[in-house]
Amino acid sequence: MGIGHWALIISPSASPAPPAAPAPSPPAPNSLLPFPNPMSAEIICVGTELLLGDILNGNAQFLAQQLAQLGIPHYYQTVVGDNPERLKQVIEIAISRAQILIFTGGLGPTPDDLTCETIADFFKVPLVERSDIIEDITQKFAQRGRVMSPSNRKQALIPQGAEILPNPTGTAPGIIWQPRPEITIFTFPGIPSEMHLMWEETAVPFLKSQGWGKEIIYSRSLKFWGIGESALAEKVASYLKLPNPTVAPYAGKGEVRLRVSAKATSEAAAEDLIAPIEKQLKEIAGLDFYGVNNDTLASVVGQLLRASKETLSVAESCTGGGLGQMLTEISGSSDYFWGGVISYDNSVKVGLLGVNQEDLDKFGAVSAIVAEQMAVGVKTRLATTWGLSITGIAGPNGGTDTKPVGLVYIGLAGPKDEVTSFEYQFGTVRGRALIRHVSANAALDNLRRKLLTR
Amino acid sequence: MGIGHWALIISPSASPAPPAAPAPSPPAPNSLLPFPNPMSAEIICVGTELLLGDILNGNAQFLAQQLAQLGIPHYYQTVVGDNPERLKQVIEIAISRAQILIFTGGLGPTPDDLTCETIADFFKVPLVERSDIIEDITQKFAQRGRVMSPSNRKQALIPQGAEILPNPTGTAPGIIWQPRPEITIFTFPGIPSEMHLMWEETAVPFLKSQGWGKEIIYSRSLKFWGIGESALAEKVASYLKLPNPTVAPYAGKGEVRLRVSAKATSEAAAEDLIAPIEKQLKEIAGLDFYGVNNDTLASVVGQLLRASKETLSVAESCTGGGLGQMLTEISGSSDYFWGGVISYDNSVKVGLLGVNQEDLDKFGAVSAIVAEQMAVGVKTRLATTWGLSITGIAGPNGGTDTKPVGLVYIGLAGPKDEVTSFEYQFGTVRGRALIRHVSANAALDNLRRKLLTR
Repeated sequence: MGIGHWALIISPSASPAPPAAPAPSPPAPNSLLPFPNPMSAEIICVGTELLLGDILNGNAQFLAQQLAQLGIPHYYQTVVGDNPERLKQVIEIAISRAQILIFTGGLGPTPDDLTCETIADFFKVPLVERSDIIEDITQKFAQRGRVMSPSNRKQALIPQGAEILPNPTGTAPGIIWQPRPEITIFTFPGIPSEMHLMWEETAVPFLKSQGWGKEIIYSRSLKFWGIGESALAEKVASYLKLPNPTVAPYAGKGEVRLRVSAKATSEAAAEDLIAPIEKQLKEIAGLDFYGVNNDTLASVVGQLLRASKETLSVAESCTGGGLGQMLTEISGSSDYFWGGVISYDNSVKVGLLGVNQEDLDKFGAVSAIVAEQMAVGVKTRLATTWGLSITGIAGPNGGTDTKPVGLVYIGLAGPKDEVTSFEYQFGTVRGRALIRHVSANAALDNLRRKLLTR
Repeated sequence: MGIGHWALIISPSASPAPPAAPAPSPPAPNSLLPFPNPMSAEIICVGTELLLGDILNGNAQFLAQQLAQLGIPHYYQTVVGDNPERLKQVIEIAISRAQILIFTGGLGPTPDDLTCETIADFFKVPLVERSDIIEDITQKFAQRGRVMSPSNRKQALIPQGAEILPNPTGTAPGIIWQPRPEITIFTFPGIPSEMHLMWEETAVPFLKSQGWGKEIIYSRSLKFWGIGESALAEKVASYLKLPNPTVAPYAGKGEVRLRVSAKATSEAAAEDLIAPIEKQLKEIAGLDFYGVNNDTLASVVGQLLRASKETLSVAESCTGGGLGQMLTEISGSSDYFWGGVISYDNSVKVGLLGVNQEDLDKFGAVSAIVAEQMAVGVKTRLATTWGLSITGIAGPNGGTDTKPVGLVYIGLAGPKDEVTSFEYQFGTVRGRALIRHVSANAALDNLRRKLLTR
């Protein structure tokens, strides 16, 4: 099958060349050859703004996700500036290791946009002006009450023999082109919204017509708290060598994730491959496993509280409201979260939470007994099932020899008047923001474990 | 100059090898050769998660910005997966076109982390186990009350002759290495916070010692709240065309910034170029200007409160603790921030803040009068100079025709028993997280304006 799908969107017959147009008659639609096998793609992002760090390369991430979903292997991404000689060198390398070259950027009307002409030059093929593109751009300007700038004429030049990859929302069309039988080239503008639409509307149908998308990659992220990356990786070592699904560990901000990715002919088939592995990994990890994908410790605790029809209040010192914020990130959290007290100053611990002034003086604000009194105090005053508290030293100042930065106590008061506390040493090197983040999550994790094991 | 600066941080002599350690004695610090000229850098990001599109390549953007600031040319970025053969091919290409190779990713403890060993293998140099790294990792685990996993031992293997680029906050050190006189290699872990710190603390001083950063780009970010990007851009239109310093507007999360960037031979010279422009821009913006660079509304409010020796408490409904969290992000905020009440449930508004139940019933929790009573209630109960409150509908549920999602009231109670409120319509399209973020900042902004104009 050729590329008739989008040839219909901008086709020479639909937009006849105006008589004055100097363009040669457009080439007959190319009947593209089927892709050779094996096959892989390379993403090539063109733009000096990427080399200056002015923008994040979201286009590479988008295309990477899309290729993975279609099951098209993809081993390299290259970023290069608006420089023809260096771009040609990049093309030379890419055609030695990939068969599908996907370019983004450099299709605009300004002199530094030279992706299309450089590709043509590399393959020693002349550019031709396509009157149908001129017509399309003219109409788009007219729609906005404007006249096409002379510089946009450049965007109508495409390599002889290439097909147009139409751009419904912008002026820069892309191309799809097989300059050699084994090489297929796609070009897209760098503007993400335009690129996404062109990819979905024309590139994906074409790639599927070529037999791609039969095998997809589908992933689930399993999330763990209370275990380090290396310890978890050792526990599940044999799984990290599986061919399909694959299991890979990631870590960040106190949390560890295992990404389980299956290659299969459908999402359902991938889920069937993942399910037994997921079950085994959960069994190995036990209570350290807390959720999947977009679950957070706050959302998981919320589900448990909603199921047991119980309520929660919090008393926060060093996190200053961060625990409450995590809990209320979830819409509907008012069903089980009633509020709390930010007892940053000791006077608030005494006045609003009923912490004993003598214990404060004797043991200090950062102590197990104060954490417990905070938890009981907030639970009692807000009349909730559970009270959860945090007191600690987030640093960088305020640490002492006996109470270093990173020392945190979590208090948990429960429905049967039981109260417990947990001591953590998060260390001085993590920094204030991370100590606060892991403190709030550790508090939620203790409540989660309690709700699951009582 | 060599790399003495960081050799001091983890040096073989400072952390003698334990007798049992099987490591060969570490190599003597390398006296690195000066860079050849011309010189350019290539950024090589290693990680299958990048090829799967799981994460955005923020590391490439960060490094690109940093290289631009130092004036180090940089023409290519490459992304490759956790695959030794393909990584070696990437190194082969990179050394043919760049002299500084900067790697991120693949330094972790798991089997798929193989950047360091692949680089060593490429240059046919053996890996050696560095006892000083083992010592450092062991200490970091001990600080958190844990024992080092055997798999972390892998992170102590570095190519013979390489220097350690210490990682103050994580277990994976990087290296700096000249495997050939004309090639300098840096490796960094993929975790952004670790990479940034290592870059700033050790790579930048080294690169500067090599003569880079002679003509620097130095920027200051002026920050504004309460004015839109286009309105500000129109007010300062003539400044947006300046050649040096340049002025460029950015917007995000309710805030507008003007980035003023000067090219000069020193930071002081750049500051001299920026200062008069900054002064003029502040005068034009008036009270909408609130700070520069890392200032936040919370830090600026904190400075004002500290100066006037006044204190603040907060009462939060829809932000659920987010305002308190913002205030306590600043170390030392306990000088002026005493705490607050998260009155998510109405019972807490009445019970802990003294909001009038009849007013709640008549006007609803999201009303000017309840916002004002919350502010007065928290100020009185916590005995602070100021009380600041937020009540609103963050959505996506809970909106009505008369009280749509995005409706937020801020209450402000002050020292002379005055109380005021402010109504905002943040609209439904921004989403729950952004409505909460701008609500907390709008509250701080009102207090800021009050403190500046009373």
